[in-house]
Amino acid sequence: MKVVRVVGYNQNLQLDEAPEPKITSPLDVIVKIGAAGVCRTDIHILEGQWAEKSGVKLPYTIGHENAGWIHALGDAVTNLTVGDKVILHPLVTCGLCRACRSGDDVHCEASQFPGIDSDGGYAEYLKTTARSVIKLDPSLEPADVAALADAGLTAYHAVAKAAKLLRPGEWVVMIGAGGLGHIGIQVLKAISPASLIVIDQNADALALAKQLGADHTIQPSKDDSFVKQVLDLTGGKGAEAVIDFVAEGGSTATGVKMVRRAGNYYVVGYGENINIPTIDIISTEINFVGNLVGSYNDLAELMVLAAQGKVKLHTSKYKLEDFQKAIDDLGAGRVRGRAILVP
Amino acid sequence: MKVVRVVGYNQNLQLDEAPEPKITSPLDVIVKIGAAGVCRTDIHILEGQWAEKSGVKLPYTIGHENAGWIHALGDAVTNLTVGDKVILHPLVTCGLCRACRSGDDVHCEASQFPGIDSDGGYAEYLKTTARSVIKLDPSLEPADVAALADAGLTAYHAVAKAAKLLRPGEWVVMIGAGGLGHIGIQVLKAISPASLIVIDQNADALALAKQLGADHTIQPSKDDSFVKQVLDLTGGKGAEAVIDFVAEGGSTATGVKMVRRAGNYYVVGYGENINIPTIDIISTEINFVGNLVGSYNDLAELMVLAAQGKVKLHTSKYKLEDFQKAIDDLGAGRVRGRAILVP
Amino acid sequence: MKVVRVVGYNQNLQLDEAPEPKITSPLDVIVKIGAAGVCRTDIHILEGQWAEKSGVKLPYTIGHENAGWIHALGDAVTNLTVGDKVILHPLVTCGLCRACRSGDDVHCEASQFPGIDSDGGYAEYLKTTARSVIKLDPSLEPADVAALADAGLTAYHAVAKAAKLLRPGEWVVMIGAGGLGHIGIQVLKAISPASLIVIDQNADALALAKQLGADHTIQPSKDDSFVKQVLDLTGGKGAEAVIDFVAEGGSTATGVKMVRRAGNYYVVGYGENINIPTIDIISTEINFVGNLVGSYNDLAELMVLAAQGKVKLHTSKYKLEDFQKAIDDLGAGRVRGRAILVP
Amino acid sequence: MKVVRVVGYNQNLQLDEAPEPKITSPLDVIVKIGAAGVCRTDIHILEGQWAEKSGVKLPYTIGHENAGWIHALGDAVTNLTVGDKVILHPLVTCGLCRACRSGDDVHCEASQFPGIDSDGGYAEYLKTTARSVIKLDPSLEPADVAALADAGLTAYHAVAKAAKLLRPGEWVVMIGAGGLGHIGIQVLKAISPASLIVIDQNADALALAKQLGADHTIQPSKDDSFVKQVLDLTGGKGAEAVIDFVAEGGSTATGVKMVRRAGNYYVVGYGENINIPTIDIISTEINFVGNLVGSYNDLAELMVLAAQGKVKLHTSKYKLEDFQKAIDDLGAGRVRGRAILVP
Repeated sequence: MKVVRVVGYNQNLQLDEAPEPKITSPLDVIVKIGAAGVCRTDIHILEGQWAEKSGVKLPYTIGHENAGWIHALGDAVTNLTVGDKVILHPLVTCGLCRACRSGDDVHCEASQFPGIDSDGGYAEYLKTTARSVIKLDPSLEPADVAALADAGLTAYHAVAKAAKLLRPGEWVVMIGAGGLGHIGIQVLKAISPASLIVIDQNADALALAKQLGADHTIQPSKDDSFVKQVLDLTGGKGAEAVIDFVAEGGSTATGVKMVRRAGNYYVVGYGENINIPTIDIISTEINFVGNLVGSYNDLAELMVLAAQGKVKLHTSKYKLEDFQKAIDDLGAGRVRGRAILVP
Repeated sequence: MKVVRVVGYNQNLQLDEAPEPKITSPLDVIVKIGAAGVCRTDIHILEGQWAEKSGVKLPYTIGHENAGWIHALGDAVTNLTVGDKVILHPLVTCGLCRACRSGDDVHCEASQFPGIDSDGGYAEYLKTTARSVIKLDPSLEPADVAALADAGLTAYHAVAKAAKLLRPGEWVVMIGAGGLGHIGIQVLKAISPASLIVIDQNADALALAKQLGADHTIQPSKDDSFVKQVLDLTGGKGAEAVIDFVAEGGSTATGVKMVRRAGNYYVVGYGENINIPTIDIISTEINFVGNLVGSYNDLAELMVLAAQGKVKLHTSKYKLEDFQKAIDDLGAGRVRGRAILVP
Repeated sequence: MKVVRVVGYNQNLQLDEAPEPKITSPLDVIVKIGAAGVCRTDIHILEGQWAEKSGVKLPYTIGHENAGWIHALGDAVTNLTVGDKVILHPLVTCGLCRACRSGDDVHCEASQFPGIDSDGGYAEYLKTTARSVIKLDPSLEPADVAALADAGLTAYHAVAKAAKLLRPGEWVVMIGAGGLGHIGIQVLKAISPASLIVIDQNADALALAKQLGADHTIQPSKDDSFVKQVLDLTGGKGAEAVIDFVAEGGSTATGVKMVRRAGNYYVVGYGENINIPTIDIISTEINFVGNLVGSYNDLAELMVLAAQGKVKLHTSKYKLEDFQKAIDDLGAGRVRGRAILVP
Repeated sequence: MKVVRVVGYNQNLQLDEAPEPKITSPLDVIVKIGAAGVCRTDIHILEGQWAEKSGVKLPYTIGHENAGWIHALGDAVTNLTVGDKVILHPLVTCGLCRACRSGDDVHCEASQFPGIDSDGGYAEYLKTTARSVIKLDPSLEPADVAALADAGLTAYHAVAKAAKLLRPGEWVVMIGAGGLGHIGIQVLKAISPASLIVIDQNADALALAKQLGADHTIQPSKDDSFVKQVLDLTGGKGAEAVIDFVAEGGSTATGVKMVRRAGNYYVVGYGENINIPTIDIISTEINFVGNLVGSYNDLAELMVLAAQGKVKLHTSKYKLEDFQKAIDDLGAGRVRGRAILVP
């Protein structure tokens, strides 16, 4: 089958032929890929940022946002049928450890992350297990939702975590209205009564944010005067939650100034350091909350919102063979919403 | 009456005469000071670290850990009697704002902090309001508990926050077994089944920690090898909670390495910066949790533990006039437990 | 001033003259009544159901859902001005007890409940304290919101409690779409992504429910076959939350059959007994959750939803002098939404 | 192998020969039984109380509290070795449903309950799966802990649920200090700072309760005057949590009178009906909380407490062949602590 692989860091991906995956264990599932999301993490992988953390051996197939159709099933899988439309939770988890049993499978003690530390979905077929498969509502197609499998799921996870604490009259600031942010906006509006301020450098992104339900949008000034805009909107107090989908280019230093006393700063993006005096943390009693991708149950919930039409992904489709153009467009900021590869 | 005041930053406190406080509002309460704790924050105040944050005008009387006896009461105070033994919550709060109504009076929108931003308890009498007064159990004396009013309350608040999430078999690391830490140890053992590792430079502090219930104690090496000790004790995974009562001298950089995936780093002490790559925060999904002093209800709970004999303060008493010796001893690390000033 | 009073149980209310209330304590507030809600509890009061619980002495003025304008203020009230539009939290609370400090002022240890155990708002003026007053958004008038002060607040409190646990894809059943229910529907849709089934005997009430956002409505059959309808809609499993605004006429016995394993049955209405075998409670691990009126903070949140247009009260206005007609219409089921008395 | 089976309701158990269980699926585990707890539920099974709920076909082997040694393992089980000492979570769960993934495997949508709805542990060998096995600490033996597998786990689950909400100075009433209760007392004291009142008809049980850490014990009077004792101990307010291990013989009607406003009544035992006016539920805003057995993670936590010596089971041992005597002794109230069958 066709696969698109990392063959070396700081060099381009490569289109190769590789053998199709085979069922080797009774809970195995082979999925025919219907769509694979192209994510900024793929670029970070190529830059080598994940090399040490993942320990993956090259060459390998990337692609960690995958949806498609069931192609083959292990003997013990009873709740799926060949041909079912499915989306895949990005992790393959054990189901036996304390984390898997606690709704926190993202911290499984024996997980794999296809597309990060093993072969992923820039390919015709992908092997996963029954624990990672969610059947799609009849109204949804793989290409509609693939990019929700990781980017969308990460946004959902962070926003749902924030929403648990948010009450009517409270404020959220989202930094970044791109691939993750535009999903985060929709999720927040679907599950929370909080008011939302969205900050982004890009005027088009802000127009989309507004259309998706942002109550206020702000294009940041070069200086810090946009911080004052946020404080003014929030009665001088700052937001109960700042959700930072960027976390580079100085966003955390200004973002922290927008957090209300006893508020939470959700770190979703990554790039720069959090660097803040402990006296500022304790005197305001704020928290920094780390966010990784969401759990299987989170993804199931996100699929409910998608089926209800409350979360719509804006996608740009590329053929699998055009992977390089997709990567280039993403790197150059030319993709609105999310890029996906289709067969 | 006698008062001990800040007359300038980076210079010594001064013993002065000042008029006694008067009842001016129906919920006012005047307390005859029975004991006032001497806190590292008092030293930070003298260094000017709080000057800008507090906005206080000099000269003023410091002392924010106070207990004593009711001396005079406003007309509307019906639940107290002159002569009652009391401890004071360190803040004077409004009772009307959302925070005061939510169990979070520490974030009152109109609070005062006697000893920080207005006259405190290094004095014969102190003025507060009925909202800040907790009657003591007959078995407790002001000198036994005064230093629990802020230092102890801060330790209680952080530990109780951590304990809400801790289950049998989980681990806590406490960094620092001094004034706050030795109370934190007792609180954790009284309210949580978690196992406890205490880290401190000082062998005597560790001996006390052990006696108070620490399951393991570690005197840190110059290099980071003590991090490995913690990892070994915790099955290679780190602790669910690291509570840092120090947060200076590099404690946060090593402390973060001891946090388990999805764990929490409680910042209680202050001095240095938290400076950590966002990728390390998101890939492990850890949180940094700010901690200020506890609420009135927290202090009431801590007084229950004190009355039950589960939390005992180790104190060194100094006469009010010997304030300079107390400050000097604290600065030089010569105080075991907490220093208090008594009449 | 004119007042409408209970002069005896099981007899009609009476229009009387009484002296205007006076400021006697520095936090007192006198409100000129702009609207007073007429509640089923008022009928229960006249039937004597609350006589023992409240311990009130007759005659007294009822009316526990009040909004209006500030008429006079005690010396210590600094955040209000004569003429301000306000709604009143139904309780007068102490602000000093543990419950008041914990966001749970409804369980204040020293509260009064004007209209239940002391003089209420079926009158020209009402006395309360600064702790019970919420300023209205400029877009809202007292007559728009008065009936939210207790009925709406009770619905909000129960629904917000349920919503904390509800996730996308989960189900709520509401029993009763009358005065409380039609507010509950709007609140649920404003703050939660859960799907909603509304059950009511009255076809008009169901039509309104649908218009307000109910996903499904059911008019119950004489037999229990409507329970099966609920089970069918919920995949055979029942709803995560059943919110019973009725709790009489057999609603609890059928309602319990609609609760999913590990689900919650929120008791809001009252009349009949909960009578259920303990083996049914433990084998399914369901909970019965009591609900009283909401807290001050709950009411502030509800006013945010009202100002945002997300919760609209359907009201029928009666002049204060026409109180008897309002009571009669309510008793006869002739009021859609809520009846209110206006000057 | 020898098995003890239900051959008909309302008749005695019977000792039979049956074939040993075999591995048929890769996650299967066969355990050599080291001890099987004898539980009041076994008596209820014989009375037919569970016949309809379980749907089990007779004859079958009961025994749902099992510990022993690994005897055989399926191909896919990598974390266990033949000979390992283990305790078994009483349910066999799927690991795929939402409940299993949420820390709530007790509500697994496809579970089996060996000893209730399939063959249990009154036998030489038992078949379960890798998802139900917990390795024992070297310091623990199967006979020490078997009865913790269901009775102890149920007590742990209810107490841990209560403890999450309990703070220093708050009160718990436990009704019943028998098989479950004597474990509940130890668990509460190990994980919570709350004060504990234990009520039991039996003076010996109360003596044990006191020894295990109960702060107060009460032998109930024929009339309700013991309710007043509880109210007096709790400042006239009642307990924040009442945990009812009995729930028959009128315990719920008196128990409810001991619950504080906004408090919780934990139903653990079963027998009689909860029968209470809804007005009493809503006017005090109390909750009835159902409790089934605990989750796998709960059992892992309980094993930590057992290994730390904080929870000790009082047991009476009987040989497997003496099952009838064990049942008889239990029925007659002659067992202190828990009866267990050993090979």
